[in-house]
Amino acid sequence: MQEYFVKGVPTGQNVIITDKDTIKHMFTVMRLQTDAQVILVFEDGIKRLAKVVDPASQTFLIVEELPDHVELPVEVTIAVGFPKGDKLDFITQKATELGASQIWAFPADWSVVRWDKKKLNKKVEKLTKIAQGAAQQSKRNRIPHVELFADKQEFLAQLSQFDQIFLAYEESAKAGEKSNLVKGLERVTSGQKLLFIFGPEGGISPDEFERLTTLGACAVGLGPRIMRAETAPLYALSALSYALELNT
Amino acid sequence: MQEYFVKGVPTGQNVIITDKDTIKHMFTVMRLQTDAQVILVFEDGIKRLAKVVDPASQTFLIVEELPDHVELPVEVTIAVGFPKGDKLDFITQKATELGASQIWAFPADWSVVRWDKKKLNKKVEKLTKIAQGAAQQSKRNRIPHVELFADKQEFLAQLSQFDQIFLAYEESAKAGEKSNLVKGLERVTSGQKLLFIFGPEGGISPDEFERLTTLGACAVGLGPRIMRAETAPLYALSALSYALELNT
Repeated sequence: MQEYFVKGVPTGQNVIITDKDTIKHMFTVMRLQTDAQVILVFEDGIKRLAKVVDPASQTFLIVEELPDHVELPVEVTIAVGFPKGDKLDFITQKATELGASQIWAFPADWSVVRWDKKKLNKKVEKLTKIAQGAAQQSKRNRIPHVELFADKQEFLAQLSQFDQIFLAYEESAKAGEKSNLVKGLERVTSGQKLLFIFGPEGGISPDEFERLTTLGACAVGLGPRIMRAETAPLYALSALSYALELNT
Repeated sequence: MQEYFVKGVPTGQNVIITDKDTIKHMFTVMRLQTDAQVILVFEDGIKRLAKVVDPASQTFLIVEELPDHVELPVEVTIAVGFPKGDKLDFITQKATELGASQIWAFPADWSVVRWDKKKLNKKVEKLTKIAQGAAQQSKRNRIPHVELFADKQEFLAQLSQFDQIFLAYEESAKAGEKSNLVKGLERVTSGQKLLFIFGPEGGISPDEFERLTTLGACAVGLGPRIMRAETAPLYALSALSYALELNT
């Protein structure tokens, strides 16, 4: 069944949808008729089964709350050094499918692109739409929050809010001993806020490495193969899901 | 250092490169001069440090064998039902980065696209190039083998060669007990041949599910969120690397 995110929280059994894009998808693309059922997800993250009362006024009746909950047991923020081209679009879509709570990007020392405030605002708008579409398709209970930092200092100032910080770093996998990522994930408890930091194509600079580890980041390897900048976040989120959702 | 795959195995210290695309990349794109060093990977999967003896005749001298080995401890084949558009390009690139040994695709019941033999041959050629490029970039010791089956029966006839077969299947994650994927990966021993099967966008048909499980496939869930057809193989390969390469 089609799922839609809706702003706010419902105050009664009847709900009127006002978002133009959502209305267009519901009544122009999907051609919903009276009594058609959809899932509405408000900002409280609860999925609610609802049916169309009146297509003309976009009024729905909430039928019941659904117990369905597909969020990771932790809040994971992905932070990547500004990558080239449209890789951030790709990362946003896939990280949303894989359960990220937040998708951040920052100007890393070795980022090739330089985006001004205006460009960043446009990009945030685009990425938020991508996140919303992917979250609906993955039947998420929430839309990941997208934030692009114009200044690396602003990003670094956010680090103190996290319970654990992992810095993806190319290091040879150590045979016969558990990796830092495994050890880190074994320490994770439900509800914690985790941050995974990834470099741009050129990687993390030595300065950044020192700065980030001083601020509490733990350098973790993601296996012996070299991955592209846009692939590493998908590896980390998949490994996290495997460790925390499947291997319990 | 730039890595190149070379056909055959070296018979002496001197090697002449004959592949046109490789020569073009070496001497036109990278402008290698005499004494420049590269890594050559022959079909034996051993990385060899080599230096240019003569750019005009594309002659290299092998300096030494390198111990560097980045392959997964198992041979993993990814098999996907023909997906739409250029998703197979994407899957091939990413599965190569994530360590797959083989990338297969087959016409599933719910595949929308229908490709004839001629189209398939062209696609194999394209995907093999993508796999080669991605393998070089990831510093792999081998290029994944690409195979597209024109007929599902041909694909099914291959299943008996695998030690374990996993069928990605949307099922709710069972709280408090280990998932089938975790249990399966705990049984894996070094050198085994594993097959992961994924449906196209519409998923695996009930007939296929029955047929594949009868042939020994174990249905595994990949977490509670719904992933796109091209994302699920990346999750599986990342989880596999985490379980077999990091958590040892």
